[in-house]
Amino acid sequence: MHHNRRDFVKKAGLLGAASLMTPAFSMSLNPQIERPKVLFFDVNETLLDLRAMKREVASALQGREDLLSLWFTTMLQYSLVVNAAGHYEHFGTIGAASLQMVAANNNIILSEARAKQIILTSLRALPAHPDVKASLEALKEAGFVLVSFTNSSKQGVSEQLKNAELSEYFDRQLSVEEIQKFKPFKQTYDWGAGKMGIKPNQAMLIAAHGWDIAGALWAGWRAAFIKRPGAQRFPLAPQPEIEQTDLIKITKDLIAMR
Amino acid sequence: MHHNRRDFVKKAGLLGAASLMTPAFSMSLNPQIERPKVLFFDVNETLLDLRAMKREVASALQGREDLLSLWFTTMLQYSLVVNAAGHYEHFGTIGAASLQMVAANNNIILSEARAKQIILTSLRALPAHPDVKASLEALKEAGFVLVSFTNSSKQGVSEQLKNAELSEYFDRQLSVEEIQKFKPFKQTYDWGAGKMGIKPNQAMLIAAHGWDIAGALWAGWRAAFIKRPGAQRFPLAPQPEIEQTDLIKITKDLIAMR
Repeated sequence: MHHNRRDFVKKAGLLGAASLMTPAFSMSLNPQIERPKVLFFDVNETLLDLRAMKREVASALQGREDLLSLWFTTMLQYSLVVNAAGHYEHFGTIGAASLQMVAANNNIILSEARAKQIILTSLRALPAHPDVKASLEALKEAGFVLVSFTNSSKQGVSEQLKNAELSEYFDRQLSVEEIQKFKPFKQTYDWGAGKMGIKPNQAMLIAAHGWDIAGALWAGWRAAFIKRPGAQRFPLAPQPEIEQTDLIKITKDLIAMR
Repeated sequence: MHHNRRDFVKKAGLLGAASLMTPAFSMSLNPQIERPKVLFFDVNETLLDLRAMKREVASALQGREDLLSLWFTTMLQYSLVVNAAGHYEHFGTIGAASLQMVAANNNIILSEARAKQIILTSLRALPAHPDVKASLEALKEAGFVLVSFTNSSKQGVSEQLKNAELSEYFDRQLSVEEIQKFKPFKQTYDWGAGKMGIKPNQAMLIAAHGWDIAGALWAGWRAAFIKRPGAQRFPLAPQPEIEQTDLIKITKDLIAMR
C-alpha cells in the first residue's frame, strides 16, 4: 500500500509541503548542497523502536526495565571487543551473551537458551518508529537510493525489516555480516560505499547513534543524526551536517537539496 | 612500609600459608603448571575500587548512583569506537565525554569542564581494593615480575597508582597511550608482551573484566579472572586457567606454581 501515490500524498501531509517540492524549487532552498547519491540507514533504534523490547528484557531481568540501556550498550561494547580481538559473532549472539552478563551482574540467573530466545523473539520483532514509513516513502518518491546498513546479521535484518513492514523501501540490505566488522570500524563504511559503487563523500549515513555518526564522518561520509529520546552525539567527533529530532525533518532537509 | 619484611609476614596472614611456601613445596602442589614470566595487572576495577567514584558520578548526575555502570560501559564502548575509526584520545577524555552523554540522556546538563574535573579528581584518586597490597607484596616477595597494563594514559595511571600507594610494587607501568590502541585490541597484548621481551604464552593478565580476559586469551596470553562484585566473564570467550573471587586467592594459586 505504500507505493500507492494517493495514499502517499495523504500521508505526506505529515511532511509538509517540502516533501512535494520539485527539484527546481528545492534547489533554490539549498542551492549549494548536493544530494547524497545513496542514503544508508542504520536500523536498530534509528528505524526500529528498541523501547518495545523493554518489557521482554525486563521479564528476563526480574522487572528491571532500567537495565535496557546498560544491556544495549554492553552489546555494542562487546561487538567491538570481539572484532578488536580479530573474531566475529552475530550481533544477536553477542546480544544474548550480553544479556546473560547484565543479568548475572544483578544476581539474576538467565540461561543461554532463554537469553537467545529473548533476542530472537523481541529484537527481531521491533516496530518501526512512527515517523519512519512516511519518510522512507517520501524519500523513495523523491528519487533517493535507500540502503539499510546494520550491525544485525543478514537473516536478522531481513526479519527485522519484514516484521516492521519496511523491506519494500530499500533498494539493498547491507549487513556487516558480510565483512565481519561491526560499525564503526572504518573498513565497514569503506566496504558499504564500495558495495554501492560510490565514493565515501557520496554516501550519507542516517542514524540515531553518536558512535555511528562519528564512524561515518571519520570515514569521509556525510551524516544526518536523528536525535531520538536517549540519543546523543559523541562530543569528541565532528558534527554532522544535519541534526533533527525525527526522520520527517531530516527527509525535508534531504528533499530540499538539489 | 610495604617492603618491610616483618610487616609483610604479619599481613601475609591474610594470604594463609601458601604465600610463604618455598618453590619446592609449591611445585608439589602444581607440578605441571609453570609460573608466568610476567604478571600484567589491569588497573581500573581490578586493583582500584571504582565504586569509590559512585558519589562523585552521582553528584554530577543528580544523585543517580545507578548510572555508574552505564557510564563506565559507555566509556569502554567509546574507547573502542575511537580506535575502530582509526583515532585515539586519552581514556579520561573519553570518560568525560561519556559522562556528558549519559548525563544528557537523563536530561542532566553537564559541562565539558565539570565532566573533565570529575574524571581528574575521582578516577585518578580511586583507592586500592582491600586485597591488593598484601597480594602484590606476596607476589613480589615470591619473585614475580609485576607490570601494570592499563587503558589509562601514562600520566593517568602514574597518578592512580601513586594515589592508591601501589607504585612501588610494579617493575614497569605500561599504558596503551604508547601504542594508541585500547585493550582488548590484539595488537595491544602483542605490544605488551614485546615490551617485556617475552612470548605471548609467557604473559599472564590479571583482570576483573570479561573483555580484558577474553582479549588476553585470544592473543595467546594466560589469564586469571578476579570475579569482583559486578564482574562477569564473557560467555563467548575461552575460559581462563584461574578464576577466583579475590586477588589473595589468585596469589595463592600463582605462588603454588613451579
